[in-house]
Amino acid sequence: MRNILIIGAGRSATSLIQYLLDKSETEELFITIGDLNIQNAQKFTSNHPNGRGILLDVFNSSQRREAVENSDLVISMLPARYHIEVAKDCLEFGKHMVTASYISDEMQLLDPKVKSKGLVFMNEIGLDPGIDHMSAMQVIDRIREKGGKMLLFESFTGGLVAPESDDNLWHYKFTWNPRNVVVAGQGGAAEFIQEGTYKYIPYHRLFRRTEFLDIEGHGRFEAYANRNSLKYRSVYGLEDVLTLYRGTIRRVGFSKAWNMFVQLGMTDDGYTIPDSENLSYRNFVNLFLPYSPTDSVELKLRHSLKIDQDDLMWGKLLELDIFNPDKKIGIKDATPAQALQKILEDKWTLEKEDKDMIVMYHKFGYELKGKKLQIDSNMVIKGDDQTFTAMAKTVGLPVAIAALKILNEEITNPGVQLPITKEVYEPILKELEDYGITFNESEVPYLGYNPDNVFG
Amino acid sequence: MRNILIIGAGRSATSLIQYLLDKSETEELFITIGDLNIQNAQKFTSNHPNGRGILLDVFNSSQRREAVENSDLVISMLPARYHIEVAKDCLEFGKHMVTASYISDEMQLLDPKVKSKGLVFMNEIGLDPGIDHMSAMQVIDRIREKGGKMLLFESFTGGLVAPESDDNLWHYKFTWNPRNVVVAGQGGAAEFIQEGTYKYIPYHRLFRRTEFLDIEGHGRFEAYANRNSLKYRSVYGLEDVLTLYRGTIRRVGFSKAWNMFVQLGMTDDGYTIPDSENLSYRNFVNLFLPYSPTDSVELKLRHSLKIDQDDLMWGKLLELDIFNPDKKIGIKDATPAQALQKILEDKWTLEKEDKDMIVMYHKFGYELKGKKLQIDSNMVIKGDDQTFTAMAKTVGLPVAIAALKILNEEITNPGVQLPITKEVYEPILKELEDYGITFNESEVPYLGYNPDNVFG
Repeated sequence: MRNILIIGAGRSATSLIQYLLDKSETEELFITIGDLNIQNAQKFTSNHPNGRGILLDVFNSSQRREAVENSDLVISMLPARYHIEVAKDCLEFGKHMVTASYISDEMQLLDPKVKSKGLVFMNEIGLDPGIDHMSAMQVIDRIREKGGKMLLFESFTGGLVAPESDDNLWHYKFTWNPRNVVVAGQGGAAEFIQEGTYKYIPYHRLFRRTEFLDIEGHGRFEAYANRNSLKYRSVYGLEDVLTLYRGTIRRVGFSKAWNMFVQLGMTDDGYTIPDSENLSYRNFVNLFLPYSPTDSVELKLRHSLKIDQDDLMWGKLLELDIFNPDKKIGIKDATPAQALQKILEDKWTLEKEDKDMIVMYHKFGYELKGKKLQIDSNMVIKGDDQTFTAMAKTVGLPVAIAALKILNEEITNPGVQLPITKEVYEPILKELEDYGITFNESEVPYLGYNPDNVFG
Repeated sequence: MRNILIIGAGRSATSLIQYLLDKSETEELFITIGDLNIQNAQKFTSNHPNGRGILLDVFNSSQRREAVENSDLVISMLPARYHIEVAKDCLEFGKHMVTASYISDEMQLLDPKVKSKGLVFMNEIGLDPGIDHMSAMQVIDRIREKGGKMLLFESFTGGLVAPESDDNLWHYKFTWNPRNVVVAGQGGAAEFIQEGTYKYIPYHRLFRRTEFLDIEGHGRFEAYANRNSLKYRSVYGLEDVLTLYRGTIRRVGFSKAWNMFVQLGMTDDGYTIPDSENLSYRNFVNLFLPYSPTDSVELKLRHSLKIDQDDLMWGKLLELDIFNPDKKIGIKDATPAQALQKILEDKWTLEKEDKDMIVMYHKFGYELKGKKLQIDSNMVIKGDDQTFTAMAKTVGLPVAIAALKILNEEITNPGVQLPITKEVYEPILKELEDYGITFNESEVPYLGYNPDNVFG
């Protein structure tokens, strides 16, 4: 039996655990799920003979070290900042490690020691980061092997509600951590490069500089820029690429409406509101509008945001019941972002029968034998239900597959790494196809942003 | 002879030094000016027999300590963050100290020791903070002595160009640190209270939520909110006041035009621009606009900000020559804010014959014997020339007067303090009148924000 320790049994761990338990007989695996909540950990094993749940507090160093020592490979599904202690234990006891998180500076520093011990510390192998890396590098490597030169790379991902469960005007529900949605884009201007020209979008304009993406059979989507696209130049070896842009996918109209909250200042997470616990939704809105003894909160908001009476924006606000004078925020010392999250959770929480959907879209522009060409590639995955969500599948399956391939010595190149080498992405993408995680690829005319080579 | 040490001989020190040298015979003062640039320090003494310039590097502790030890009172005109080491020396050697800066937490911690040694550490005694504190507290104390209850306090200050030197469309020139103007309002939402309702304005809306101020003989001004008005509740003892608002004064139209830079993201100080040294003004503007191979930077900007061809905003941009493809930013690793400052300095630097102007405006709303009343009070000061600017006079004279009154034991109450007690503000405001620094006060109808007591 090979022992796999999974630390942190969150909602996104279902498909990961299912995969490993399903393979546990043939592959001789024993799966230990460690979590702060032991009932939760046990529930995930579904009484499978090759699985068990244990109590594991990652801050309890002897508990953590014992669990790591007894395993052959450790999967950490904890929030990224907690990986490092686990990683140090893995290094000490000579265990492989897999995470779906970005490689932190601290993690990167372990690389020489991880290499010298012949260990594989695979990171960024969930959805985004993860499937985005693998699927992009597969096409980029193919273009290069043909002798092509990359000109443009754009990549977009979004976690959405599936069309059959899409029943609100925003065409959005929380399928992932709501807080990340509320504060998305904050912390600095979005930076990217288009046709060799650097471009910067400040946060308060981010949701007004969107672009459309059409996917056959799924309709039109929109995307707003992620904060830092430029770091992918070195990650993917695209230092000379003229256009590099990464973004987040939403259904059309979401960003324009979300911008209302940004403009008002409701997404601010930097200060707390006095007596927020007893603040009504209506008075929350009024915090961001000029004082007037005679005008309603509604009219002040419409005037402030220049919303006409027949504007769809207005319907979106009303749908959230945001002017209700009786509903209370009910959170002590809430920031505006926390209060807004509460209001949105009333309406955007997935119902029991709701399904989620993951959409990914890549564009690869390149030059081959003097001709400019473009490949577009997209992936659309729906959840089965609220347990095996599209998010759980796309995050968990690559993690699970990588873990098993490391144990089986199909992935052997040691070090702290992300899945951008062929040795890693080829077999994993291949196996993901068995689970319906496939990309739809098409050759399209090279569009770029400057077909006529005009200066702009 | 009493020795006064002035550390930091910047442009705002002229009136301060002049005042003390003028009084040096009758008051038996000897003025030592310590600066990193000894020529600069000497120049300020104008060869006066009771003054001298010395080399003083505030980071050279033996040099600093010797200078402090040989003085009876120290005036620090250094940037606020450098005061603390000087303050510790003053404490050790038993010297009084005066600054025009906000009391830092570190400075406040010295208070018990300063008191036990019977020393006066007077801070916030320039213009703003300084004259604003004194003039406001004088009226507030008067209202309270009559039995009035404060309902509203609003206070506005601005450093502007005098009308006779106002020759650009922005009605603005840099009369103070340009950097502070470019990044003004950043770092968090503006917080204040109006008729008992908290209000928050995010940075990207700050310059669109202005209010007008009219001053007889000087015309109309506008004001935008300062970041934190609420701390003045405790400073001025206005815990129960319904309206508390502090703002910055500009000429009408400035804020709406400044908002263009905010909207574009040009005031961002959080990242650096690649190869900013060789970037043209035109390409700087283009960083913040969508890529287009066919449209001009001008049209993209007009479309992006919705500026019609006959809009005055457009003239303001053209006046700055911001679309010039030949002028270079010329600063290595510049942030957008630094690049914008460079462009503005081309046009907004005071000419030799230009005069500046300081405007301050207070509103005091109160209730007395069941009646609501209001006092408005304003101050308008013009500079004499580029040496004795309005800024130098209004910052330097209160510092100088306070210093002398401390030496003469007219101000004796010990401790780390700001000028909000009658003992301090009465004699200083009285003497400032001799220098033309006076307030124009009038009883006006109580306006408040809610005359009819309607909920808003």
